[in-house]
Amino acid sequence: MQTELSKKLGVEHAVFGFTPFPAVAAAISRAGGFGVLGAVRYTAPDDLKRDLDWIEAHVDGRPYGLDVVMPAKKVEAPKDRTLTEADVEAMIPEGHRQFVKDTLAKYGVPELAEGEASGWRITGWMEQVARTQLDVAFDYPIKLLANALGSPPADVVERAHDQNVLVAALAGSARHAVKHKERGIDIVVAQGYEAGGHTGDIASMVLTPEVVEAVDPLPVLAAGGIGSGQQVAAALSLGAQGVWLGSIWLTTTEADLHSPALTRKLLAAGSGDTVRSRALTGKPARQLRTEWTDAWDDTNGPGTLPMPLQGLLVAEAVSRIQKYEVEPLLGTPVGQIVGRMNSERSVQAVFDDLTRGFERAVDRINRIAGRSGE
Amino acid sequence: MQTELSKKLGVEHAVFGFTPFPAVAAAISRAGGFGVLGAVRYTAPDDLKRDLDWIEAHVDGRPYGLDVVMPAKKVEAPKDRTLTEADVEAMIPEGHRQFVKDTLAKYGVPELAEGEASGWRITGWMEQVARTQLDVAFDYPIKLLANALGSPPADVVERAHDQNVLVAALAGSARHAVKHKERGIDIVVAQGYEAGGHTGDIASMVLTPEVVEAVDPLPVLAAGGIGSGQQVAAALSLGAQGVWLGSIWLTTTEADLHSPALTRKLLAAGSGDTVRSRALTGKPARQLRTEWTDAWDDTNGPGTLPMPLQGLLVAEAVSRIQKYEVEPLLGTPVGQIVGRMNSERSVQAVFDDLTRGFERAVDRINRIAGRSGE
Repeated sequence: MQTELSKKLGVEHAVFGFTPFPAVAAAISRAGGFGVLGAVRYTAPDDLKRDLDWIEAHVDGRPYGLDVVMPAKKVEAPKDRTLTEADVEAMIPEGHRQFVKDTLAKYGVPELAEGEASGWRITGWMEQVARTQLDVAFDYPIKLLANALGSPPADVVERAHDQNVLVAALAGSARHAVKHKERGIDIVVAQGYEAGGHTGDIASMVLTPEVVEAVDPLPVLAAGGIGSGQQVAAALSLGAQGVWLGSIWLTTTEADLHSPALTRKLLAAGSGDTVRSRALTGKPARQLRTEWTDAWDDTNGPGTLPMPLQGLLVAEAVSRIQKYEVEPLLGTPVGQIVGRMNSERSVQAVFDDLTRGFERAVDRINRIAGRSGE
Repeated sequence: MQTELSKKLGVEHAVFGFTPFPAVAAAISRAGGFGVLGAVRYTAPDDLKRDLDWIEAHVDGRPYGLDVVMPAKKVEAPKDRTLTEADVEAMIPEGHRQFVKDTLAKYGVPELAEGEASGWRITGWMEQVARTQLDVAFDYPIKLLANALGSPPADVVERAHDQNVLVAALAGSARHAVKHKERGIDIVVAQGYEAGGHTGDIASMVLTPEVVEAVDPLPVLAAGGIGSGQQVAAALSLGAQGVWLGSIWLTTTEADLHSPALTRKLLAAGSGDTVRSRALTGKPARQLRTEWTDAWDDTNGPGTLPMPLQGLLVAEAVSRIQKYEVEPLLGTPVGQIVGRMNSERSVQAVFDDLTRGFERAVDRINRIAGRSGE
């Protein structure tokens, strides 16, 4: 499964795997794909350093990358000093805080222990945190830097290019993709409606070729709805130079969700059990549909706040729900492909399935096309 | 582009084209595909007879089919007599009628002339009307009978099979597809989220392979988001035995929308300019987003009524908007592929583009797969 882009990056298969877990990222690269570590959860530079060291030690010299989050729209900083989390906290209405408290109380969600930090912090979404992540990451031989929300700032693109690091950015529309191209981005990840996490409302079948045409000759990775070799073949038929998979790794044996209940929910969920909701971050993000997302999407409730306020508002609540595995509320970003995530498998097993399924799909399409010898 | 199903039906390309226009249906079959005439707008049997005669005279002996609408959920009929349109009319709340009047008045939409019939009637959605359509259609050598909402009744399936007519039914989920299989349906049309008309919320990339697996060995047609040869290749990679295209024909030269303004709107629209709204029929149907759909989807409005009441409620209004081409309100069911419908072309030109694009996509996927001699 070789495209110009996979050759340029020196990987065997044009399969890019996004994951928050270092063990999964390393396993994807070892299997012949390109592992991309999601950095958003690293608020302490030393934690990121520790995990990049681990990847270096376990990736067998294969290439890998890093994904950061630098939202295009920022909360405006006070003129005289750097924006703090407290500044952002002060923008959250009391009624919304009460709604969080009431909802957690309704389900009997226990408090965190005294002094116990919330596991998921909004700070990773703030540009200065992403910049400290980059300061760490550029000391490692990363080959790709991806940004989830908008184009990264010009100086970051320049710094990446100076170090021979390709820059990728996610786009949910051709218009956004063209902006990325104008800003010197090297690779566009066309993220369809069916994807986990932040998405627009245009499905991959329509979005992928539209983005390919709009940013030609830049390479495009197709994201959203891909978890089998058939889907890889479909995405590449649409003109993509590779696929970008996120959800499928969540139920691999190398993933560490810290929650057997959440893994069970993912394995049991069907393709219709996700929802695009603003509950997690304030922007529409596909995730498991739960009583928590229902509460935020209920027109009788207070509704969600804009990014980054919503994420800050619910950070501690989400940590509590996850820690105590409060099942009706327990969720995670995941795409519609969750319907096909029905058993725990190793990353290598997922890869074998992808590559074999791809070959079978190519056999079949050749038969349909009447190509002899196939 | 040959699959078992296309061979069985005796067509050159596994491309099924749904259209309300006889000239388009005949042109699709003449071009080597399989034309399917949508019958919902025919309330008078003689009109349907006239148009099927026309197709017979213009299809050069090629096979074609008919699409009817028999909703699975029906309005309950009075015990002592047949349900009339007046019975259904009586179920519509006065507030909703007033909202229609007010919205039309706000945009200055003129009245129809005295005695002028509404062009689009709800009656086509009622089972007894669909049955009169079938009584007409079974006198013609149709090869396929498709039903848009749910499985057709058992006696209809039996009658079709007695006449060697294959029965197809649309499904937006694997669960619905399995029900079709249990009821003896021959072909499932997996209609993805991105499709025009009634859709569920699962996108084609995920839905198609899920339905293929769920109803194996029944053949599946992929619908939703398909308008280019790349997309045909993608859909066939996903395991479909053919593709089902509806939107793409709306801007062909053979189509007769009776509205230059609507054609202009379709040609100008981008993939993000559609919405899944209950405004038209009471069930979520993808269509051009307009100020009319916005009014119905507005939480400050009365909201929509369930099928078939909504369709009955808005039928005359839609006719008036169409007749007088009131641009802000003017819309039509259409899928996200509308973003690629940018010029008026003949059906044959669309077909040439589909088949050439398919061959190019197969060439490309073979290069990526490293297949020699390709």
